[in-house]
Amino acid sequence: MFFEGIEKKLEVIVSPEMPNLRALGKEFWEPVVLAAGAKILSELKTDQCTAYLLSESSLFVWDHRFTMITCGQTTLVKAVEKFLTSFKSNQVVSLIYERKNEYFPRWQKSDFFDDTRFLNNCFPGRAWQFGNSDEHHLLVYGFSQGFVAPPDDFTLEILMYDLQGPLRSLFSAGNCSTESLRQKTKVDQILPGFKVDDYVFDPCGYSLNALKNDDYFTIHVTPEEVGTYVSFETSVNKAEDIEPVAHRVLEVFRPQRFDLVLFSPMSMAQVPEWPEFRMKNHAQGSIDSGYSVNFCHYYSALDEPISPMVLEV
Amino acid sequence: MFFEGIEKKLEVIVSPEMPNLRALGKEFWEPVVLAAGAKILSELKTDQCTAYLLSESSLFVWDHRFTMITCGQTTLVKAVEKFLTSFKSNQVVSLIYERKNEYFPRWQKSDFFDDTRFLNNCFPGRAWQFGNSDEHHLLVYGFSQGFVAPPDDFTLEILMYDLQGPLRSLFSAGNCSTESLRQKTKVDQILPGFKVDDYVFDPCGYSLNALKNDDYFTIHVTPEEVGTYVSFETSVNKAEDIEPVAHRVLEVFRPQRFDLVLFSPMSMAQVPEWPEFRMKNHAQGSIDSGYSVNFCHYYSALDEPISPMVLEV
Repeated sequence: MFFEGIEKKLEVIVSPEMPNLRALGKEFWEPVVLAAGAKILSELKTDQCTAYLLSESSLFVWDHRFTMITCGQTTLVKAVEKFLTSFKSNQVVSLIYERKNEYFPRWQKSDFFDDTRFLNNCFPGRAWQFGNSDEHHLLVYGFSQGFVAPPDDFTLEILMYDLQGPLRSLFSAGNCSTESLRQKTKVDQILPGFKVDDYVFDPCGYSLNALKNDDYFTIHVTPEEVGTYVSFETSVNKAEDIEPVAHRVLEVFRPQRFDLVLFSPMSMAQVPEWPEFRMKNHAQGSIDSGYSVNFCHYYSALDEPISPMVLEV
Repeated sequence: MFFEGIEKKLEVIVSPEMPNLRALGKEFWEPVVLAAGAKILSELKTDQCTAYLLSESSLFVWDHRFTMITCGQTTLVKAVEKFLTSFKSNQVVSLIYERKNEYFPRWQKSDFFDDTRFLNNCFPGRAWQFGNSDEHHLLVYGFSQGFVAPPDDFTLEILMYDLQGPLRSLFSAGNCSTESLRQKTKVDQILPGFKVDDYVFDPCGYSLNALKNDDYFTIHVTPEEVGTYVSFETSVNKAEDIEPVAHRVLEVFRPQRFDLVLFSPMSMAQVPEWPEFRMKNHAQGSIDSGYSVNFCHYYSALDEPISPMVLEV
């Protein structure tokens, strides 16, 4: 059985009059994480953010905002249910829930439509599909009330399929310390000046959380027989930083194919182009909270046909 | 709930000493079709082949060979189980089972791995995946004993996504007679000189079987909110006919994207190229019965990003 590396993502912003979410500490967040079917493994702090490294991905908590990313067979909407035992839904000013189409949707405990039915009982939101159903695509549910996206609030996600470079074998090897993996891959230095917290899973898999003030980046690696999957996500404060950051990430990981997901506070955000990749699909639109969303899939053309993969029967 | 247009396909060849499969008639084939969860709606005959039009796609029966194609939530391997109540597995000289990755795999009653576990209890076969797991890909299970693919035995499948031309609205309209649909779309004339049998489904969907001697073609149209899906399949006797036939099919249906699946008796079969489509992925390899399989995905690049699809919540 394969492990589903593709993540679900939740971002919740509460009203500034609400108690400080970060100050609630691990005793508050642990049951929220557990509700989704994950566990807190470690934490990393700055003065503005606490990053929890989870058994299935990551949770970042700021004063009035949190972002939770979970993979595998987790039920991330259950974390919303748990959160709402302490907060009222009218104290939430923005909620965004994302789900990328999965490798193994049959093995998920819910689909996006189940999830939105649940969310929509709590929030009068809306849902969109970015990209065609037969291609890589992103499902987004969004709710907002009186929230306006700040002008410096970009989020860049790069979802990478089938690494081609030396990192593939380094991540697949397993049985490696975090220190030696960081030293060999330098993934902790993709962006400079960040404190990092990382974890090597048994038998394989790697997660990294990184913080600098209120900025973050996070990396999750799922080495699969079907091809190593890596997700990278970061906050970006200026539109002009998007391209160099994305370029750096692709240079390090060298995927054969990747999705670029960009949430930006203005509608005219440009998505980067790369000479070595072709863009196959691109969906672009706005969601209610004032974010513009771009979803693109890129691939590098192969010179030769690939051979079929022999499957075990 | 959407209808799964993507098909499963089964091709079985029995030893020439076996009873004539075609002569067994509808009373034999009806329970085989029922076992898969489909029904026979009508039949069309030539001296060499009987084509049954099914509630979920098609069944073609020749003297010692049959090809069954089913869509929706059918369980095509159950047809094998039923067939084996009358035939022994050692009377089967070749079995090929194909499954394209689906739009809605969560709603399927089995996955390819469940199916191959069942098949492998009856036949010592092998399984392959053509194409990467995150892209369009084809899963193939094959078994053969003492069978050699005849030199004129090509099969061309063209699986088309998101029709762009006038056929999209013609097929989506529903409430239309087969005669008027044939007249407007001319899909019965894609290849000349064939007898046809077709069916318009309620509320929508269209199937066509066509026969000329021992040659066939078949078309299945699933108009979906997510974009009309059409499959075309035909027997081809000469390698040089592949490109013109494929060209004609694409000219009629005008898909935005399509997969080309080519089974050919020699390993060096070339796949066509089209100036208006880019090939994204191409997997090529041989399976045990001497067939070479090509699986390619093509798309036409869009000038502009597409808008997100608003989903009902």
